[in-house]
Order: sequence, then structure tokens, then C-alpha cells
Amino acid sequence: MTVERRARAVEAIQALGADGLLVTTLVNVRYLTGFTGSNGALLVPADGPAVFLTDGRYKDQAAAELPDVEHVITRDLVGEASGRMPGRWAVETHTLSVDDHARLTDLDTVSADRLVEGLREVKDEIEVAALRRACAISVEALQGLLTGPLVGRTEREVARDLENRMIDLGAEAIAFDTILASGPNSAIPHHSPTDRVLAAGDLVKADFGARVDGYHADCTRTVVLGTPDDWQREAHAVVQASQAAGVQALVEGAALADVDALAREVLDDAGWLEHFTTGLGHGVGLEIHEDPFIGRSHAGRLARCTTLTMEPGVYVPGRGGVRIEDTVAVTGSGAPPEVLTTMTTDLLEIA
Amino acid sequence: MTVERRARAVEAIQALGADGLLVTTLVNVRYLTGFTGSNGALLVPADGPAVFLTDGRYKDQAAAELPDVEHVITRDLVGEASGRMPGRWAVETHTLSVDDHARLTDLDTVSADRLVEGLREVKDEIEVAALRRACAISVEALQGLLTGPLVGRTEREVARDLENRMIDLGAEAIAFDTILASGPNSAIPHHSPTDRVLAAGDLVKADFGARVDGYHADCTRTVVLGTPDDWQREAHAVVQASQAAGVQALVEGAALADVDALAREVLDDAGWLEHFTTGLGHGVGLEIHEDPFIGRSHAGRLARCTTLTMEPGVYVPGRGGVRIEDTVAVTGSGAPPEVLTTMTTDLLEIA
Repeated sequence: MTVERRARAVEAIQALGADGLLVTTLVNVRYLTGFTGSNGALLVPADGPAVFLTDGRYKDQAAAELPDVEHVITRDLVGEASGRMPGRWAVETHTLSVDDHARLTDLDTVSADRLVEGLREVKDEIEVAALRRACAISVEALQGLLTGPLVGRTEREVARDLENRMIDLGAEAIAFDTILASGPNSAIPHHSPTDRVLAAGDLVKADFGARVDGYHADCTRTVVLGTPDDWQREAHAVVQASQAAGVQALVEGAALADVDALAREVLDDAGWLEHFTTGLGHGVGLEIHEDPFIGRSHAGRLARCTTLTMEPGVYVPGRGGVRIEDTVAVTGSGAPPEVLTTMTTDLLEIA
Repeated sequence: MTVERRARAVEAIQALGADGLLVTTLVNVRYLTGFTGSNGALLVPADGPAVFLTDGRYKDQAAAELPDVEHVITRDLVGEASGRMPGRWAVETHTLSVDDHARLTDLDTVSADRLVEGLREVKDEIEVAALRRACAISVEALQGLLTGPLVGRTEREVARDLENRMIDLGAEAIAFDTILASGPNSAIPHHSPTDRVLAAGDLVKADFGARVDGYHADCTRTVVLGTPDDWQREAHAVVQASQAAGVQALVEGAALADVDALAREVLDDAGWLEHFTTGLGHGVGLEIHEDPFIGRSHAGRLARCTTLTMEPGVYVPGRGGVRIEDTVAVTGSGAPPEVLTTMTTDLLEIA
């Protein structure tokens, strides 16, 4: 599959009028080669085979993970690469450091302008399968957690329980630090779990995910401990409606700004918009946050087969908050989106 | 304490002849301010108060963590900073991207040349205290693990057990992905835990650590399951002797190359040097790998109050390997080093 990805990269390099691309962004190297180590770079000539560079620690791993790509073992990736870039090469100026770039000044370089990030927006089948598995594990872990009582346990304990369930179900790691926020803490969009003890009447917001083969699931559900009071029920219903509208809007060709407007309008009509203070969604894949980002001022349209989150919320300082988030795959050919975190978004009442 | 750190930064900025320093490396921002979020920058003028920049997600957190520093909330850290850099400013060219640097071209900038990394080599009392706590948790977790039987459990299970023990003992997180390598896998320096079942006669290498207040412990011990055979005993004894020699060499003013030579010589004299294929040690603190690095070709001398690892090993492909690693604090005034991972380096025989 990485052969096809490199072929797409070559097309984009040729379209850019460059003689090759030096890939120094590690996650882009992984995308184009499958390499999972912590140090590597890739030379992709417009005509000819790619060359992978890494250091001695990864000699055996590179041989196992990249059997079809020539390797160069070196302590000095950029220095070694610089001798192999004849003509005019594209470089990843959005991440390449000024110091590394200075070592290429004798060469004729041009900005790659997020070329590989652009390719990565369109997921192939292997990527969607990994995300589907990561999302299935995430949802199963949360459902397991919610069968047990939560009242009387701390945010920290519950977060670890959820994380351990994901690992037990086969996640290679958690996708990001779990947000487990209860009661007034649920009003903090990005809350780190504390020793606060969960109590009857609390809203409990869990924002969490599993990682599988490098791909990140991202899911949020907000439940209530016991019976919700009126404002909790209303807040949840508004967010649920906004989230459903946003998910339905995730179709190929939709303008990012229009998707944003649709979900936002539901909150606005209900009078809750002032309490929505975060972004609405972001691409998800080899990175937990990647292109595209959904926002009012974001240009661009949704590509086919991209995967992203939809996560409206309302946050009332001192009182509490609700967020509902799914990881969603945009399908091709105008078909409806596929929700990968397949779990009810209804307000669950937990003991 | 961050006030003193910023004062040291100002001295270094003045020594550089600059009018200020733009700090864009997140870990350096944390060092100089205490900010623990994922997006922030800091302006440090040579004469005048520092200004911190972050985005709206971190408004409340910045107010809590940096009560004594002016904040600017913006989505565009570099753009906003560029309007506040009169005269000639130093920028962190080793991490600043080419694209971000291009947005500063109207300004007169100079490379900061790892100025903050240099300050970070010398740890203050708060930093050493955090490392001491992280190391104590790490060692206590391993000792707990080793009281139970290991034979019959998988590498993955044992690694998770060790990680859970660190969290239970108060670690905020694990410092890095645990290496738990058994039998032939112990010959792989950086091995990811697998489903291999630990068996009698195995060498078991655990390279792991706890994180406390952002500071990373780094510890390795290699044990044997049952009674060691002769080559296992010999390999362990050689590494133990090399490691002890290396630790003793960690005194203020010692040349990094000399430290390397001392530990290496012990392996060479015993005929095992060909099996030592990794680096000997590295600084450790807010990053798991930071300046200084110990190596033959590394210039420089050990500063007072720096903290680093000492981790020789031997790796015999297909057969097994041994590594012993401590996190060590170099003290001031010629006093002997302080080992922070206080646990025997003798070969332990585990059921």
C-alpha cells in the first residue's frame, strides 16, 4: 500500500515541477513507508526509487518494515540527504528547522507546501480499517465502563479504568490523554482528570480513544449520574441535535465553512451558542489532529474518504458541560457518512 | 523559580548581544514559565517583562499557571510575536520552521543557538526534587514487580503491570514506552513488548520510568529467571562493572569523551566491547533525551547539577543482552554523583 502512496507523492511532485521531495516530517515518513521508529527521512525523486535514511538504532527495524526501499544508515539525515538531491527539490518548510534548511542552501529548493499532508487527507482502505478497529475498541471500552457504578470513584480512577479496558481490548496505546471531567469540571473543555469523586447528579464527560496501527480514534460521550435535571437534559438535547446535523453534513465536496455553519446554527437557534467555545472538528488519522479542520474561516471542501471528528459542545462555567463527538468517515460518491464510533448519542443515566 | 530562570535567560540574551529572545520550543516555554499546555510561545526582552502567548483553549490555564506574566491570547503566535520584537532578537532556529521564520524576515533576527537548552542542562532544586521523586517511584514499582513470579506471563502483561504500579505510586504518566525484553529479545536494544511468554532461564531487561511534574526518570535493570548460566553471569558482571565506572566518572568538569572512554574501557578489557552498540548516556529532565549526550566524539564537559543516564550494555543477537541504567545527578564542588534510581545493580534471580 505504501507503494501506491509513494506513486501518488511522485504525481504531486511532478505537478509541483520539482525533481524530488525530501520528507523530514516523521509522520509523513511513516505514511509513505510504514516506518514506525522515531528518527527517519525519505528521499522521493520524481523519477527513480525512494531512499530511506535512519540511524543505526533502526537498522533491523527498517529492514523488516521497509523491505522494498533502499536504506541508508547515518547519524546525519539532512547532511546525507543533501548529497542526493540533484536539481530542484521540494522540502517540508512547515516543519523543517531553519538550521537544517541552512544546510541545504547550496541546493535549489522549493516549499513542498504540505504536499504529503494533502495526500493524507484521503484515506485508503488500510487506513480506514485501522480507524474502524480503533473506534470499535474505544466504544466497547466505554460501554463496558458504563455497566459498572461510577458514583464514589475519582475522575483519575475512572479514566485509568477506561484506558485499561482499551488496552485489554487490543489497542496498542491510548490515542491521547483521556479527558474525564465530572460535575462542574465538565464545563472545562480540556480537563485533566483529578481526584474529584463522582457524585449523583453529575454530568460526566469522557473524551478518549484507542490507537491501532498508529491510527487514532477520538470519541466523546457525556452521561449523567442518576436522573438528569431540566437544564442537563436541555443542554444534552441541543448538543445531540447539533452533532447529528454536523455529522450528516460530512459529505464529499461540502465546504468546511458550511459544515461549521450547520452545526452552529442548531446551537444558535436554541440560544446556546455563546457556550460553544471550541472547534467543531478536525481530521484524524496518523495524528490525532490533522487536516482538515472545520471552522467558519476555513477555506476548502471535504475530500472523499477523509476521516474527521464532529464534536460540538456547550460549557457553562461553574455548572457543567456537554460534548458529543464521533469519528466519522466521509465516503465517496455522495453516499452518507460512516460513523466509526458506533454508539448511541442519547443521554445515558448511569448509577 | 521560573523568575530566576527567566533572569538567567536575560543574562544569556545580553551576552549574545540581542534585544530579546523569542521562545517557540514548547518544552523551553514550559521551563521558563511553568506552562504545561500544548501551544505557547514566550517573548523575553533583554530589558523588560516577558510576554506569554497562547490560544483561547489555554486562557484559564495560563492565568493559573503564569500569574506573574502578561498573556496574549491569539491563534497566530508567531504573527502576534513579530509585532513585539523591536531591534535584534534571537530566535530558536534549531526548531523554528522555515515557514514561521519567513514571517519574521522584516525583522533583524539571530540564532539563539540552543540558549535555553544550555540553561536547562543545569538543574535547580525543584527540578532535581521532581526527578528524585520520579526515580523513587520507578524503583519502587520495579521492586514490587519483582516480588511476584514472572515466568508464564507475556512481555506485554509484565510491561503493563510495571506501568500500572508507577501510576499507582503517584506518577502522572509513564516517561516513555516501556521496553520489556525477554530471552533472545533482550538482545534488541530498543524492543517493544510482545506476546512472548517469559520462561525459566531468560534474561529479562526492563527499561522504564515514571514522569513527575514533567520530569522523566530513566532506569534499566536486567534480571534472570531462575539460576543464571555462566555467560549470563559474565555478561551481567561486565556491564555492572562498566556502569559503576561510568557513574563514578560523572563529576563536574569531566569531559564527556573521557566519561565515555572510561565505561567503554571496562567492556573492552573484558572482550565484550563489540557487543556494545548503543549510546552510553544522555541528559534527562523535561525531555527524556536532552543535552548533554555522552559519546566519544562529543565535545564539552559536564556542568554542575546536570542530570543524566549511564547505561552501558551488551547485546548478543539471537542469544540475549544485558543493560544496566541509572539516572544520576552530577553534584557541585567535586562531590561524588548522586544516583537517583537507588536500587542494587547486582544480578537478581527471580522466580
